[in-house]
Amino acid sequence: MAKLKPQHFLWETEGTVARVRLNRPERKNPLTFESYAELRDTFRALAYADDIDVVVFLPNGGNFSSGGDVHDIIGPLVSMDMKGLLAFTRMTGDLVKAMLNCGKPIISAVDGVAVGAGAIITMASDIRLATPEAKTAFLFTKVGLAGCDMGACAILPRIIGQGRAAELLYSGRSMSAEEGERWGYYNRLVPFGELEADAMKLAKSIASGPTFAHGITKTQLNQEWSMGLDQAIEAEAQAQAICMQTKDFERAYHAFVAKQKPVFEGD
Amino acid sequence: MAKLKPQHFLWETEGTVARVRLNRPERKNPLTFESYAELRDTFRALAYADDIDVVVFLPNGGNFSSGGDVHDIIGPLVSMDMKGLLAFTRMTGDLVKAMLNCGKPIISAVDGVAVGAGAIITMASDIRLATPEAKTAFLFTKVGLAGCDMGACAILPRIIGQGRAAELLYSGRSMSAEEGERWGYYNRLVPFGELEADAMKLAKSIASGPTFAHGITKTQLNQEWSMGLDQAIEAEAQAQAICMQTKDFERAYHAFVAKQKPVFEGD
Amino acid sequence: MAKLKPQHFLWETEGTVARVRLNRPERKNPLTFESYAELRDTFRALAYADDIDVVVFLPNGGNFSSGGDVHDIIGPLVSMDMKGLLAFTRMTGDLVKAMLNCGKPIISAVDGVAVGAGAIITMASDIRLATPEAKTAFLFTKVGLAGCDMGACAILPRIIGQGRAAELLYSGRSMSAEEGERWGYYNRLVPFGELEADAMKLAKSIASGPTFAHGITKTQLNQEWSMGLDQAIEAEAQAQAICMQTKDFERAYHAFVAKQKPVFEGD
Repeated sequence: MAKLKPQHFLWETEGTVARVRLNRPERKNPLTFESYAELRDTFRALAYADDIDVVVFLPNGGNFSSGGDVHDIIGPLVSMDMKGLLAFTRMTGDLVKAMLNCGKPIISAVDGVAVGAGAIITMASDIRLATPEAKTAFLFTKVGLAGCDMGACAILPRIIGQGRAAELLYSGRSMSAEEGERWGYYNRLVPFGELEADAMKLAKSIASGPTFAHGITKTQLNQEWSMGLDQAIEAEAQAQAICMQTKDFERAYHAFVAKQKPVFEGD
Repeated sequence: MAKLKPQHFLWETEGTVARVRLNRPERKNPLTFESYAELRDTFRALAYADDIDVVVFLPNGGNFSSGGDVHDIIGPLVSMDMKGLLAFTRMTGDLVKAMLNCGKPIISAVDGVAVGAGAIITMASDIRLATPEAKTAFLFTKVGLAGCDMGACAILPRIIGQGRAAELLYSGRSMSAEEGERWGYYNRLVPFGELEADAMKLAKSIASGPTFAHGITKTQLNQEWSMGLDQAIEAEAQAQAICMQTKDFERAYHAFVAKQKPVFEGD
Repeated sequence: MAKLKPQHFLWETEGTVARVRLNRPERKNPLTFESYAELRDTFRALAYADDIDVVVFLPNGGNFSSGGDVHDIIGPLVSMDMKGLLAFTRMTGDLVKAMLNCGKPIISAVDGVAVGAGAIITMASDIRLATPEAKTAFLFTKVGLAGCDMGACAILPRIIGQGRAAELLYSGRSMSAEEGERWGYYNRLVPFGELEADAMKLAKSIASGPTFAHGITKTQLNQEWSMGLDQAIEAEAQAQAICMQTKDFERAYHAFVAKQKPVFEGD
């Protein structure tokens, strides 16, 4: 997918790492019907792509994303019928499903505003870095809606705990970067000048690992979400046995015996 | 429900916010068979009430609640048969179910002792504030019982994590206010003199929001508890599409366009 | 089980507390096929044992465990067929299942290295103490495998949150003791010189509690893992009603009335 030329967001690749940026910085990078759909299709395609191993979402012009555009999205929704509304909420949910099911770790690097659907993109990522200036808000309540948008009532509590999630969803208030780090939302805070380099370094480090196995890790994190404990343990016995038949497992063993660093190839 | 005159606890309303206090401060506000039943019935009725949007549980006389009274409750239980015991544990569980299913956000403001069933009431609330003097203990083990009381083995781990919950449930020890805040049990700590005012300010702020949508947020936080991820995302697509047909969503849009603050009416 | 003489790990009892140590300190106590199987069988037997109430896992020679031995385990796995691989991953998963289902609280006291399957043993314990020198790593990715080993994708996120767990599982990096305490992995940090005494004090304190009820607490923490909320509350009504028919519940009541400390006997 190195040659992808999306129309509604920026896409660059460096090795097997893809960088995504929403691209209307003068309006804090809102999402539109078109960018939702194109992002959804891109993450769906990633599930089958061999040339991308990790995706990094980056801010643009000092902000991550202001979410669904008030004029381009909320205006039309206000006069839509139920069939149209459900088509819209399913499309946005399908973006999250596609991110969860793409089989590649996703890193969000957050700066400035990440609100509404912008916050959801960070929530649906696997790992999150942020600058001290990051402001993340699940502000659906501010526009008269419920907190249950694109999976937030299921996913946010598992990241930061049920009590903190409830407060953010009922109030719509911003979570500061410092709160986000303390609560386990951000894996760490990074000064603005180092954010992109740090996210890329982490992405390359993960991309240099056993990427087939990483895909299984991502699959199982989702797959075991609501399993019973004994079922999850059996599921992992099967999934890990699959990984033990990869060449990467063999490579790691031989490298270890030779006191070398293993070079993984993702098969 | 503004005119409710409960016999076994205090009930006051201010606008659409209800304040609840247990009322035997000289004994740290224990629960009795009667107050359990009356609280359960009140929260069941709240599910259908249009005049209350948020409930605030408050301490009384420097304590929240000492839980099930040793003389009034534990004494009779000791000589009860299995049919009677199960009727009792189901009644207490029904209070938690009624709190979860009432459709209104519940805020607990904790001071002093909140132990046993008193701790459970705070746990079954959506948002928790506390003074630095709050002492919360799931002390069932101290009276020879298991930690699995009124949902604690399911709910407490989702608020503070599985490891911290296990220690509290096996030891029965008090969680300090400072621990509670660090662990995500309390949303924040507030000096005693500001506790009630702060809880009421938060309650009024939530009550001035889109209360129909808040009810959907509460429903989905419970509903998605044990769903798979894809199912939760579809459930939210449906639930949010319902909210997009409310007038509050329209009000928010028109207010935004007119650069005004939206006035929500809960429909 | 006081008389157990395991061949592949150390086992000592003190009252009803059992102490377990892996025992190849010169190689940081790796696991072998034999010690996996013997530990699994021991925890299975514990489910029926009346003479042990709490198990404490301790470090040996400054380390907890280096996990599956590279020469003794990884080497043979590399040339095994799928039937053999699945038999192995199921055996390791069965150790975790046996720990979860043994009905006795398990405390891990961690010092030095606790990595791979060693980290999993601490994760599958109920309560975790550690020295400031503890280094815990779910390093499966370093040997070319997925993070889904012995339940890690299901259990680790419930202890430290989904985002922190994802980073540890994709990177394989060490979690420091300080991180572990902040994140809720360790219940507390203890200086090296006090680790064993502190773990034993906690174990004896739990063992002096209502041990039948503790077994029900452990059962319910596992049982309610993926239940719906209303189902979990009904399950607890039933489980707690069972505990209300124990003599320990009666003992606690009579002790309270007599202003004495209850003496529990586990029935």
